[in-house]
Amino acid sequence: MKGSLLYEGKAKRVYHTADESDQLVLSYKDDATAFNGKKKDEFAGKGRLNNLITSKVFQYLHQHNITTHFIKALNDTEQLVRRTDIIPLEVVVRNQAAGSITRRLGIEEKTSFTPPIIELFYKKDELNDPLINDVHAYHLTDITEQELTFIKQQALDINIELQKLFRSAGLTLVDFKLEFGRLKDGTIVLSDEISPDTCRLWDKETGEKMDKDVFRESTGDLIDTYTKILHRLEESVCAK
Amino acid sequence: MKGSLLYEGKAKRVYHTADESDQLVLSYKDDATAFNGKKKDEFAGKGRLNNLITSKVFQYLHQHNITTHFIKALNDTEQLVRRTDIIPLEVVVRNQAAGSITRRLGIEEKTSFTPPIIELFYKKDELNDPLINDVHAYHLTDITEQELTFIKQQALDINIELQKLFRSAGLTLVDFKLEFGRLKDGTIVLSDEISPDTCRLWDKETGEKMDKDVFRESTGDLIDTYTKILHRLEESVCAK
Ligand SMILES: Nc1ncnc2c1ncn2[C@@H]1O[C@H](COP(=O)(O)OP(=O)(O)OP(=O)(O)O)[C@@H](O)[C@H]1O
Ligand SMILES: Nc1ncnc2c1ncn2[C@@H]1O[C@H](COP(=O)(O)OP(=O)(O)OP(=O)(O)O)[C@@H](O)[C@H]1O
Ligand SMILES: [Mg+2]
Ligand SMILES: [Mg+2]
Repeated sequence: MKGSLLYEGKAKRVYHTADESDQLVLSYKDDATAFNGKKKDEFAGKGRLNNLITSKVFQYLHQHNITTHFIKALNDTEQLVRRTDIIPLEVVVRNQAAGSITRRLGIEEKTSFTPPIIELFYKKDELNDPLINDVHAYHLTDITEQELTFIKQQALDINIELQKLFRSAGLTLVDFKLEFGRLKDGTIVLSDEISPDTCRLWDKETGEKMDKDVFRESTGDLIDTYTKILHRLEESVCAK
Repeated sequence: MKGSLLYEGKAKRVYHTADESDQLVLSYKDDATAFNGKKKDEFAGKGRLNNLITSKVFQYLHQHNITTHFIKALNDTEQLVRRTDIIPLEVVVRNQAAGSITRRLGIEEKTSFTPPIIELFYKKDELNDPLINDVHAYHLTDITEQELTFIKQQALDINIELQKLFRSAGLTLVDFKLEFGRLKDGTIVLSDEISPDTCRLWDKETGEKMDKDVFRESTGDLIDTYTKILHRLEESVCAK
């Protein structure tokens, strides 16, 4: 099934398929990194958890008419996706203030944003993924105004669906990061992953942080936490 | 004429008028600061030069139907302005890449921007005046979408007029920073200053930097440079 390695990121390896089709195999690694790679560790089982969680989330999005790159999970740590040309933007949706925005703009944690705040970051490790505005995005990438409007609307639609899914799993979706890419025909579809690595999820009752912040802030066991997320999603009435 | 001190900034002192009207006296200081106050010095005569240059520029803008806070120069270092409630945004217009944008986004110096790039920074010294997007501006200030559209259009109109003025003075307007404020009736008008402290000006023929960068980068004499700018504006056919 798997062909040669196309590239290796911090969280996943990306392989061609054996037949060199327009599909790719994403292989989830056990590595955890934070603060742009400055904090690093390895957690046996993390790759499996993120692969299974992302697969569940993308299946759920398909059921709610959101087109994505996802085709199917191949095994515990690998999934088959449609190859896209990733647009070098991280699209962040924030329902409440947490993390970088609290420090950057002096906004208190938990401040609600209605409507949600969308932020764009330029995906460029050497520059530390800087925050940009829309006009910067037109200069730095090949997206048009129309396409950026579409991406933002998609991000808001995805937010509504994900809020439902996670709420049914006893979790508050605080914020998350999306990446979009282009299929061969130019269509823009959601790509990459949606996992506790890329979302902030707080227990709906206790407020406990149940995402990569347990690793960033060394406040809990990553594998325990991600395992709980997977189980809660498996039990959720929404994710059947 | 001058009443009590209202506040003191890095570049100007702001006084009430003796009759406590809706007018203020801006008194330009000889201090120069850069890198958010980390580099500091004093240059005898700088206050006079910036007061006279700003006064010329604002008069020119009035002649071109741009409403501003400016009323008149009172003497060498002071000017009378209408009091505004400053909106805590720095509105930066860039015709070419220079300074922070080259480092922040890895864009080569002198790269042309057509249309010009407008950037918003949140005026907050404790946060180092961070770059923000439009939605941040709605959360952090009281401006509406309509008002932000007006401010950006004003910034572009001002850019066109200033490009003409400086071109006639043998200078290329690379970028500049504006501040807007509200009059008592809510009207938004251009406030603060427009001087070599707040613009990047390059000699049209030689490319020589003729603005605060000579201080930031210690590449020239600030008083000599600002004196040349004032003289060139005084001789310009546009600024009569
Ligand atoms: N459908 C897809 N087609 C092609 N590339 C993809 C697809 N989905 C995700 N990718 C890319 O796979 C790469 C590896 O993912 P990983 O999350 O490990 O990257 P990373 O180290 O986080 O780097 P980055 O900061 O660029 O995301 C990323 O560049 C991601 O954008
Ligand atoms: N018409 C006006 N009415 C009221 N305040 C004004 C007006 N024009 C300018 N100001 C304000 O006067 C203050 C003093 O100016 P100065 O340039 O010294 O400030 P600064 O130290 O640069 O601080 P900042 O970073 O806030 O601009 C600034 O806060 C500026 O916004
Ligand atoms: Mg990634
Ligand atoms: Mg100032």
